[in-house]
Amino acid sequence: MLDENNWFTEVAEAAGSAFSLRIKQRLHREESPFQTIEVYETETFGNLMVIDGFTMLSTRENFLYHEMLSHPVLLTHPAPRRVAIIGGGDCGTLREVLRHPEIASAVQIDIDERVTRVAEQFFPELTESNADPRATLLFDDGIRWMREAPDQSLDIIIIDSTDPVGPAEGLFTTAFYRDCHRALAPGGLLVQQSESPLYHMDIIRGIYADTEAAGFQDRATLFFPQAIYPSGWWSATLVSRDQAIPDFRAVAATNLPFPTRYYTAEIHRAALAQPAFFKQALASTQGE
Amino acid sequence: MLDENNWFTEVAEAAGSAFSLRIKQRLHREESPFQTIEVYETETFGNLMVIDGFTMLSTRENFLYHEMLSHPVLLTHPAPRRVAIIGGGDCGTLREVLRHPEIASAVQIDIDERVTRVAEQFFPELTESNADPRATLLFDDGIRWMREAPDQSLDIIIIDSTDPVGPAEGLFTTAFYRDCHRALAPGGLLVQQSESPLYHMDIIRGIYADTEAAGFQDRATLFFPQAIYPSGWWSATLVSRDQAIPDFRAVAATNLPFPTRYYTAEIHRAALAQPAFFKQALASTQGE
Repeated sequence: MLDENNWFTEVAEAAGSAFSLRIKQRLHREESPFQTIEVYETETFGNLMVIDGFTMLSTRENFLYHEMLSHPVLLTHPAPRRVAIIGGGDCGTLREVLRHPEIASAVQIDIDERVTRVAEQFFPELTESNADPRATLLFDDGIRWMREAPDQSLDIIIIDSTDPVGPAEGLFTTAFYRDCHRALAPGGLLVQQSESPLYHMDIIRGIYADTEAAGFQDRATLFFPQAIYPSGWWSATLVSRDQAIPDFRAVAATNLPFPTRYYTAEIHRAALAQPAFFKQALASTQGE
Repeated sequence: MLDENNWFTEVAEAAGSAFSLRIKQRLHREESPFQTIEVYETETFGNLMVIDGFTMLSTRENFLYHEMLSHPVLLTHPAPRRVAIIGGGDCGTLREVLRHPEIASAVQIDIDERVTRVAEQFFPELTESNADPRATLLFDDGIRWMREAPDQSLDIIIIDSTDPVGPAEGLFTTAFYRDCHRALAPGGLLVQQSESPLYHMDIIRGIYADTEAAGFQDRATLFFPQAIYPSGWWSATLVSRDQAIPDFRAVAATNLPFPTRYYTAEIHRAALAQPAFFKQALASTQGE
């Protein structure tokens, strides 16, 4: 919501908190077939994309999210070649994935083409790799796409979704994870944005339980800051198809052939450190 | 500020952002000789202390800040015995310090006794160690106290201050750091809350430059989440009197004789990982 003093505010209802950015002007607003997409010019965060009232990304700090959703999973897989991104319509994750020269194909499946078109206009830096010959952009239902994906056709699945309400709800279910498991080749890894460790332990526990029920063998959560998301602290959960999550390729992470703004080998290792309360919360789940 | 819908909002003016918590009621408000102290009962964060309109701490997540301001520095010093806390009137840092059995004395020097009295009433869990025979609570000017502290009388100095405006401004100066340096014994360490890595690189750079000018030999910044502070991402900067910052005592950190909610040995190591942009920003300062 935008108030009379030009603040855009996202209220996290259940959490009883809100985050606001001061706005210069609204640049765009449309009702796509799936959702309301808005773009604001903020005073200090660059452009801000908002979907159905929820902040999605800002020019200033989307690098944290996009780097942490892509580089850790790619540097954990021993030889990643085939990547699918479910959601991710702003194309920022796709751009980071394509920075890795060993990637042969990256398919992005977002249900709403309008998100990509709006990103092209207001976040052109995020869409700069869309013409890469290794990239395929599909505008389709990611759940159905995964159901129809050939067996063992992917090395990495990145679930770059909105919150588990509305269109993204089906991306947080055992049925969807079963399709992901089937579509992954041996050694395959999945990573999913998994909300705030401070606010959403129930969602993180759900991802652990549902991916276990779907046959995945191991899980680990990565933690990172994200100022515009509720609580300012965010997570992504890494899930391994058929084995313990391997150590990441630290030498490769130290010698990346491209620049990063947040990610380093040191940050990768650090992001895996589990807060005491988080360990306790997961342990108590497993005892249930 | 509190609006008509019972939201307390802290505006980070220069950052162009704001954070809000939904309030059940205001529990307290007073003008102390130094500042305006308020306490609100929030819907989801427990009690919230606000000083001069800035959020100081909440029941729900102060553990992040208090643990990260105390345990890393104490577990980095090889044999800490004598601790001074400048500021810290809510006593939460003092409580964490006193959990360490090797600490012989901990002196807290906060200019405003009313902060401690208000904490006793509304955050009693934070003040539960105030009667510990090793604790001394002084209500005095921390800058003057440090000027008068005997040479080499301290092992650890913790600067648990408000932002570097108003009463705390003098705690972010070379002159104050010189007094700290003189008051520290060989091997001594100082840690200072150093604001948001996303918003306040200028302040962090200032701490690096000013402590170097004051004779300190090494510096490292710790990063941690803090939902109620601007950007939700916070830091503390660790400074070493006369040598490179030693490796922390990982075995002791793994076998703490007390519970923690955030801190672990793994988290300690992780908090020291420097984001790529942070390294670049510091390197460019040093080249100036």
